Amino acid sequence: MVTFARSDTTMTLSEQITSAVRSVIGTNPAALHEPLFEGDEEKLTRECVETGWVSSVGKFVDAFERGLAEYTGASHAIAVTNGTAALHVALVAAGVGRSDEVLVPALTFIGTVNPIAYCGATPHFIDSLPNAPEIDIEALEAYLDGILELRGGSAFNKSTGARLAAILPVHVFGHPVDMDHLADISERYKIPVIEDAAEAMGSTYKGRHAGTFGLLGTLSFNGNKIITTGGGGAVLTNDADLARRIKHLSTTARVAHRMEFIHDMVGYNYRMPNINAALGVAQLRNINNFVLRKRILADRYAAVIEKIPAVRLLREGNDTQSNYWLQTLILDEEIADQRDQVLSALNDAGYGARPVWRLMHTLPMFESSPRMDLSGAEGMAARIVNIPSGPALVQL
Amino acid sequence: MVTFARSDTTMTLSEQITSAVRSVIGTNPAALHEPLFEGDEEKLTRECVETGWVSSVGKFVDAFERGLAEYTGASHAIAVTNGTAALHVALVAAGVGRSDEVLVPALTFIGTVNPIAYCGATPHFIDSLPNAPEIDIEALEAYLDGILELRGGSAFNKSTGARLAAILPVHVFGHPVDMDHLADISERYKIPVIEDAAEAMGSTYKGRHAGTFGLLGTLSFNGNKIITTGGGGAVLTNDADLARRIKHLSTTARVAHRMEFIHDMVGYNYRMPNINAALGVAQLRNINNFVLRKRILADRYAAVIEKIPAVRLLREGNDTQSNYWLQTLILDEEIADQRDQVLSALNDAGYGARPVWRLMHTLPMFESSPRMDLSGAEGMAARIVNIPSGPALVQL
Ligand SMILES: Cc1ncc(COP(=O)(O)O)c(C=O)c1O
Ligand SMILES: Cc1ncc(COP(=O)(O)O)c(C=O)c1O
Repeated sequence: MVTFARSDTTMTLSEQITSAVRSVIGTNPAALHEPLFEGDEEKLTRECVETGWVSSVGKFVDAFERGLAEYTGASHAIAVTNGTAALHVALVAAGVGRSDEVLVPALTFIGTVNPIAYCGATPHFIDSLPNAPEIDIEALEAYLDGILELRGGSAFNKSTGARLAAILPVHVFGHPVDMDHLADISERYKIPVIEDAAEAMGSTYKGRHAGTFGLLGTLSFNGNKIITTGGGGAVLTNDADLARRIKHLSTTARVAHRMEFIHDMVGYNYRMPNINAALGVAQLRNINNFVLRKRILADRYAAVIEKIPAVRLLREGNDTQSNYWLQTLILDEEIADQRDQVLSALNDAGYGARPVWRLMHTLPMFESSPRMDLSGAEGMAARIVNIPSGPALVQL
Repeated sequence: MVTFARSDTTMTLSEQITSAVRSVIGTNPAALHEPLFEGDEEKLTRECVETGWVSSVGKFVDAFERGLAEYTGASHAIAVTNGTAALHVALVAAGVGRSDEVLVPALTFIGTVNPIAYCGATPHFIDSLPNAPEIDIEALEAYLDGILELRGGSAFNKSTGARLAAILPVHVFGHPVDMDHLADISERYKIPVIEDAAEAMGSTYKGRHAGTFGLLGTLSFNGNKIITTGGGGAVLTNDADLARRIKHLSTTARVAHRMEFIHDMVGYNYRMPNINAALGVAQLRNINNFVLRKRILADRYAAVIEKIPAVRLLREGNDTQSNYWLQTLILDEEIADQRDQVLSALNDAGYGARPVWRLMHTLPMFESSPRMDLSGAEGMAARIVNIPSGPALVQL
């Protein structure tokens, strides 16, 4: 194992970080995130093929939905084709429509923001904390006080006239947002919360699973997530009516009938196929194991990273337990200009490393969207380096 | 084998049809359509799990796209999450947008029409032939002559003022539309054709594969289709620029970059996961076998159905070769009132049988959409009975 002292000044920052990563995960190349199939994945997908039930009918979708509800503690889970589709139907079910605005972080993946555009609504960007990627709720509160007015039980943006139809917090890299504080704001300003918990399967806030606080919450089971179904997502809710509506919307809004095909609204083909749900059922059986490995990995990284000046590993906040979906280095401001060198050095050494997503308000299609001051997000975006995070990097 | 003479008047119509179906497919219950997995489906999906490549990266998506292009003769095929998604990106890529109208049959599955609504456009319904479910191109021609005006190289609806942005023919039940005639109209009226070939994988018109005539064509690989990927679809095109655009739109419009996540337009997460593409690669290897079985099944059904007065099996038209996706009985007008009895008798006997979809213009969300006279579609819809059609019903 490579070791080095805090005072080791013969190594550059890039070398120190690369060597710290190597000391934790070894010399083999490692992707940023890879799934682990050590359970019944092969058996259950084989069962689908053998029985012919690979598609829109079959027992695994129901089983996966029940399993998700049980694991997260949500009353209802609806499996869909992916996390983007989950957010889209969640927004539609919450009544977000043409010319509404939706409050959403600038620091997030594109999959959070595109569904707002699908609804014909406009993203309204909110800032991140100065020292962590999650949204800055205090700053948001002050901002909303200035721009909002309440009319007929809804919040409106005084300057654009648009209704603020929802707030969409993101549990970035698996670290839950302060949901109590956000619930206050949601209640005071009459703006419903839809949680993007795509990255937060296995994360909790005050002991309760991420994605179960808002009116609706969504998950992703893309290949790079904590558990995968190939492609997949889910909507969580404690509201039985919303759950029914989302199931209806995501299955072409077909009305139950013995033989006839009748549909009563514009719906979507977002149903998760049975073969993907089979993978999900198998993966879900191992989620505690995956989260445990990733939490151990965080401890190991933290132990070596803390010896490097001006760099830290993002740790879970008070009241939260993180799944550590993506392990996250944060460079101090004074060394932010070395981020790209660090990224290159890690990738050159065979370690999948990545900067955070290009901020949403800088992308051409969202350049003119309304926003609060985004200097927190801008500061963060310049200083984040994600490093290899897959569960297989820790042997139990 | 049950036989009966044309003069057999002791049996009701329902009994005659049920007995005819039984004489072809035997006494075991049979679903309307079931997939057949006799090839490499298990092997290739297992390979995905073993290698960890189940999701958005992996070799099967490329292989499936290449296989689809080769099989259909299209220059490009882009695999997506399903046939509905395929039509959606096809319409977006063709420039269909807010307040446009799209010409589309009233007699089709909801998945043809919903994507028009996703674009913010309006379906404009067209009629079916008096004696077959496909669109009535002659009647359409006369209708368009009356309602259209050409301005700046585009067609506009004189009464609504909307641009007629596309015509979306459907190869219903696998029977190709007369594409030469439609191409004439498309050219004369400057309306691009986007073919919904969801049901027509394996069908040809004048020797060329359905879905390869229009600007764009789409396929579905839902569990009830000729080949299945669990859930899946594809866009076909001979235009390299459109192919690139559709790949871009269906993969979150991410710009190629070593590490950064940059997106240059509102895109979709419609990428087909690798594990579903693995199924598709295996299924595609057997498509000729599936089509052959279904064509034999059509011959067998036709031989017994022709003995029943006032009922016929829908056969392929001139210049076309049908995949016989769904076998279709058409009752003569004078016995149309017995359709529901026939459907019940078949289902009671364990045979999956179904009326055609409720016509689109009668669904609440499309009730006020523009339309031509739809008496052909209405007549057809009252007289169609689909009967068991899966490839496993014929042993080779
Ligand atoms: C924060 C966030 N939101 C949304 C998504 C979209 O999920 P998916 O890729 O399954 O559509 C993802 C993951 O990709 C994500 O990380
Ligand atoms: C005519 C037609 N169009 C569109 C679709 C939509 O395809 P998918 O179900 O794969 O979304 C289907 C099949 O379901 C169909 O039969």
